Amino acid sequence: MKLKTIYASLKNDLSFIESELEQTVNAHHPVLRDASNHLLKAGGKRIRPVFVLLSGKFGDYNLVLMKNVAVALELIHMASLVHDDVIDDAEMRRGKKTIKAKWDNRVAMYTGDYIFARAIELVTELKEPSANTILSNAILEMSIGEIEQIKDQFNWDQNVRDYFRRIKRKTALLIATSCELGAVAAGASKAEQRHLKQFGYYVGMSYQITDDILDYTGTVKELGKPAGGDLLQGNITLPVLYAMNQDNKKHEIMDIFSKELNTSQEKVNQVISIVKSSGGIEFSQRISDRYLQKAFNELDQLPSQSARTSLRQIAEYIGKRKH
Amino acid sequence: MKLKTIYASLKNDLSFIESELEQTVNAHHPVLRDASNHLLKAGGKRIRPVFVLLSGKFGDYNLVLMKNVAVALELIHMASLVHDDVIDDAEMRRGKKTIKAKWDNRVAMYTGDYIFARAIELVTELKEPSANTILSNAILEMSIGEIEQIKDQFNWDQNVRDYFRRIKRKTALLIATSCELGAVAAGASKAEQRHLKQFGYYVGMSYQITDDILDYTGTVKELGKPAGGDLLQGNITLPVLYAMNQDNKKHEIMDIFSKELNTSQEKVNQVISIVKSSGGIEFSQRISDRYLQKAFNELDQLPSQSARTSLRQIAEYIGKRKH
Repeated sequence: MKLKTIYASLKNDLSFIESELEQTVNAHHPVLRDASNHLLKAGGKRIRPVFVLLSGKFGDYNLVLMKNVAVALELIHMASLVHDDVIDDAEMRRGKKTIKAKWDNRVAMYTGDYIFARAIELVTELKEPSANTILSNAILEMSIGEIEQIKDQFNWDQNVRDYFRRIKRKTALLIATSCELGAVAAGASKAEQRHLKQFGYYVGMSYQITDDILDYTGTVKELGKPAGGDLLQGNITLPVLYAMNQDNKKHEIMDIFSKELNTSQEKVNQVISIVKSSGGIEFSQRISDRYLQKAFNELDQLPSQSARTSLRQIAEYIGKRKH
Repeated sequence: MKLKTIYASLKNDLSFIESELEQTVNAHHPVLRDASNHLLKAGGKRIRPVFVLLSGKFGDYNLVLMKNVAVALELIHMASLVHDDVIDDAEMRRGKKTIKAKWDNRVAMYTGDYIFARAIELVTELKEPSANTILSNAILEMSIGEIEQIKDQFNWDQNVRDYFRRIKRKTALLIATSCELGAVAAGASKAEQRHLKQFGYYVGMSYQITDDILDYTGTVKELGKPAGGDLLQGNITLPVLYAMNQDNKKHEIMDIFSKELNTSQEKVNQVISIVKSSGGIEFSQRISDRYLQKAFNELDQLPSQSARTSLRQIAEYIGKRKH
């Protein structure tokens, strides 16, 4: 099933969110406007707003209130991408030049700060302090996750547990927060808030593992950037962690990286081959599937309705996507 | 009068704030703890917490509530210093190595994000949504101010109005917010909130102008860094803007910067001489004094009490300080 088909029932609400997103970043300073709009135009799946809206369907769904949360969550995601680009020296994001590449690092950092602050401002409009607490906590944890990722770069002694903790903070938490805040904004019951949050967490884990698999298996066309980008930056993800646990693969991989003869891309290509032949891709896929299954189990605790079906379809899509 | 004497009446409350600041940054991840603590230990005048506390004296002063705001405001100031350092390539701050220099740029950026989020989390504990709105707006405007500063670097065609708008966002707004939120947290009247906010704004303008003067007149010992740092980075502040409006000084200054023979520090030293002989320092001092006078006028609208006297003394100190 295509994402577009799943989104169909939300089509009008999502167009509204899209125009609100544009208005939000357009409201202020020209330089910021250019920078934010550039990012906005680069698109994205708007997964977080969709999770906000669908979670809101379990309570008293009011688009005017839901909008604040949906836009805020997408803004936080955008801000984290902007700051990621400053950090990763990434020249490409979603196939377009990054803000950093187009303007410069310093503007990118403050654009990120600005977008974070706009997001918080929006959620404050709910007049529900717990929503602000949840949101600021998500930003906190994301920052820690990013610092952990930096610390763990090219650290060949890390284990799978480090990886899971990192992607929880880096990705899963914001999707969990999207579901939770959607439920909070709509006044869903505490139990529903909890199940939706857990659902979002499991989907988020699966989402990031899929992302990390695609970085090994994807083409430039699918990813908007060459495969092996994570390795190139020293980000050690599940597929290679699995490979490193097989026989002497750990030393083989470390040897490749310590060789002086090869270019970085050649090193990365060699490691990709090892990971593929070791079964690291299939292993990671199994783990991703297991998280998806846990996500489905959470959905089973929620009342049966079309929003629940849509959440399930999106979760399935996420586990099988190619980009 | 020394700052220490003025602070005397707040001594116990400020020690409490200091230990809360430490606890706040100590609570999370070890890397963050190191980075934040490093910054905390570098000290600072804690001007913003002092303004929060003194403003709270005009309402129902409850230290447990005031603390959240006082710590939050200092954290936001700290976060902006951290991000400033990423941007400015500054190796020194308050005489100590910056976080960026000690760790690296990427960790510094996420440390800033983390500290921002902690600040928001704290203010949320007031359960007063307007406080969150005021705070996120301050972060918004600060980000725009920073982007404006980048945009205006080495832009010799800017005028005094650009400068004032920039320092309003960069500095004055956060001090205004400190006073305003202190009053909000203590439930002072709307009129008192307004006067305190305006007072903070005028003091903040005077504070930044004084800072910009000191960058021309201060010694390494006083500043913790060499004079002329602003010029070196292309930050065109009031003293040189005044000089550029005299006779042919604008072209003289631009010529100095376009010469290829000199080192950057030699260029800066030449411009400092021109600024001093043009009367740019005295002019800036007069403007700073005028803002201080406006700040005093706002205080006159507030009930007479010892907190009012302290605010006046701090404002006076700020206008005459040497570091």
